[in-house]
Amino acid sequence: MRGVVMHAPGDIRVDERPEPVIELPSDAVIRVTAACICGSDLWPYRGTDPVTEPTPMGHEYVGIVERIGDEVTTVKVGDYVVGSFFASDNTCEICRAGYQSRCVHNVPMGSLGTQAERLRVPLADGTLVVVPGEPTPEQVRSLLAASDVLGTGWFAADAAAAGPGKTVAVVGDGAVGLLGILAAKQMGAERIIAMSRHADRQSLAREFGATDIVTERGDEGVAKIKELTGGLGAHSVIEAVGTQESMMQAIRSTRPGGHVGYVGVSHDVELPGLELFFSGIHLHGGPAPVRRYLPELVDLIMRGDIDPGLVFDLTLPLEEAAEGYKAMDERRATKVMLTF
Amino acid sequence: MRGVVMHAPGDIRVDERPEPVIELPSDAVIRVTAACICGSDLWPYRGTDPVTEPTPMGHEYVGIVERIGDEVTTVKVGDYVVGSFFASDNTCEICRAGYQSRCVHNVPMGSLGTQAERLRVPLADGTLVVVPGEPTPEQVRSLLAASDVLGTGWFAADAAAAGPGKTVAVVGDGAVGLLGILAAKQMGAERIIAMSRHADRQSLAREFGATDIVTERGDEGVAKIKELTGGLGAHSVIEAVGTQESMMQAIRSTRPGGHVGYVGVSHDVELPGLELFFSGIHLHGGPAPVRRYLPELVDLIMRGDIDPGLVFDLTLPLEEAAEGYKAMDERRATKVMLTF
Repeated sequence: MRGVVMHAPGDIRVDERPEPVIELPSDAVIRVTAACICGSDLWPYRGTDPVTEPTPMGHEYVGIVERIGDEVTTVKVGDYVVGSFFASDNTCEICRAGYQSRCVHNVPMGSLGTQAERLRVPLADGTLVVVPGEPTPEQVRSLLAASDVLGTGWFAADAAAAGPGKTVAVVGDGAVGLLGILAAKQMGAERIIAMSRHADRQSLAREFGATDIVTERGDEGVAKIKELTGGLGAHSVIEAVGTQESMMQAIRSTRPGGHVGYVGVSHDVELPGLELFFSGIHLHGGPAPVRRYLPELVDLIMRGDIDPGLVFDLTLPLEEAAEGYKAMDERRATKVMLTF
Repeated sequence: MRGVVMHAPGDIRVDERPEPVIELPSDAVIRVTAACICGSDLWPYRGTDPVTEPTPMGHEYVGIVERIGDEVTTVKVGDYVVGSFFASDNTCEICRAGYQSRCVHNVPMGSLGTQAERLRVPLADGTLVVVPGEPTPEQVRSLLAASDVLGTGWFAADAAAAGPGKTVAVVGDGAVGLLGILAAKQMGAERIIAMSRHADRQSLAREFGATDIVTERGDEGVAKIKELTGGLGAHSVIEAVGTQESMMQAIRSTRPGGHVGYVGVSHDVELPGLELFFSGIHLHGGPAPVRRYLPELVDLIMRGDIDPGLVFDLTLPLEEAAEGYKAMDERRATKVMLTF
């Protein structure tokens, strides 16, 4: 089958890869109907994370079940399914507490490479959520967003304790930050401040529910958030970048007792203990347990209540994946969908 | 009046200090009936924090109201009162959210020096809680503990989400850690693991509710906590030291999705972003909003439900304060009460 492989930073190819098979009785094999390129795929693409060998790429996917292992009971051949970027049994103590991305048996889907025609999904019963009915092309796009960027933005908003009466600030205007806005809006936030300096992203931020735009960054951005919140800072701040500057911007934009939900994969971040101590904030984040939210997100999408698929601003056939990476790297695209 | 003054690291004297007066109509002046020495007073005593000029010491206190300003309405002369180490108006938006230690008008009581015969208490209405009736000597001791170490341990347990069904681990066996154990027990924790290598503190830990003792520290301590929790880590971890080692011990002892409540004042702590990210924990702490909990704590103490005053293992008259600091510095005492 055909699949995306990164051979070195900046070197993306679509190669022949081995057909996936049922390796364990809890596996399923799906035909991928859509996959996408993640902001986190840019870390190795840009050489920030090392690429030591040709690496199958991708961890987001929707598809149709083609085969199931003998132990699989909740998913059947022909089901339209979506899963998150971690396979999880959904039954261990950590899963039951809602942290499926840290399931004791978790398998990172990135290690399997979802930007490919077919995909082995471990722990299929725990991992996959069946979509009721036949999704429209717009719904497929939104379900694909649910696989990571929507689920991650949703977790960030939840970790930031977004809710009625709250002012939510969002650091980062990539797909996750934008969908954090959508999530905060769904959770009833009163005011949502998007921190963005790109006109097209500001526009989508407003469409998703942002009430204010702040273009300043770093300490100037913090000052602006304080100014908008009576000097106190936001109740809830979503951090969706993962740099030292963005983390400190998030922490400093939050009022004492407020919440930071951080989901940008931390790169060279060191949090100063004393400043964090006196900030008095709640800090929660990490790899989003998207599986916790997937059933609700699938419902919202299939009912037409949300359209997170709007974050995809470039759609390319699988064979043109290299152009997709390039477009995201050069910020010509926010989020790229690959079709089959 | 007489009061404790630190002239330099290790140089504690009881000096004549000016009599406090009503400076603002929201002030009260109280006659201090008991004060104490805090673990955090040892930072400057040991030279870790600088001492640039003779500094009045102390931020914990109970006492009897002697004078009130014209605007004070909820406290009257003769009331037996307790307050926390931050004066707070208890009406601003931050106070109403339960973060009185970060009140927009907060005054650190340490700046006034409570280890003295009399004390000006700013924002008396918001700061002071009236004790119903006449406390016994044991209750005075416990109310004094409520002023900081009990309130701080309580906040740590709350921030760590201690509760029924939870396993709580406690890093630090000073007064705050020990009272974190008492708090976790009151909050219904199922299992409480005290990390301590001192026999007398282990004994008090058990009296307060610890079910297990771990003597190992650092990564060995973490391994032991994992061993006691099915490999997962504790649900809730209280950090009551404030060093790099203790913070990392706390974070690594916590299961994914679990909670760290940290109240040890951070000294030279830098939290590695990537490890924190993948830990998936909740992190909350800082200067405890003791005022939030004081009414409940006063009730529990006056009803005889808890006896946090047991942490005081040395009582000295004010004039012997220097010996009190020395005893705590040399770990001959856990917590020293000063009487008047």
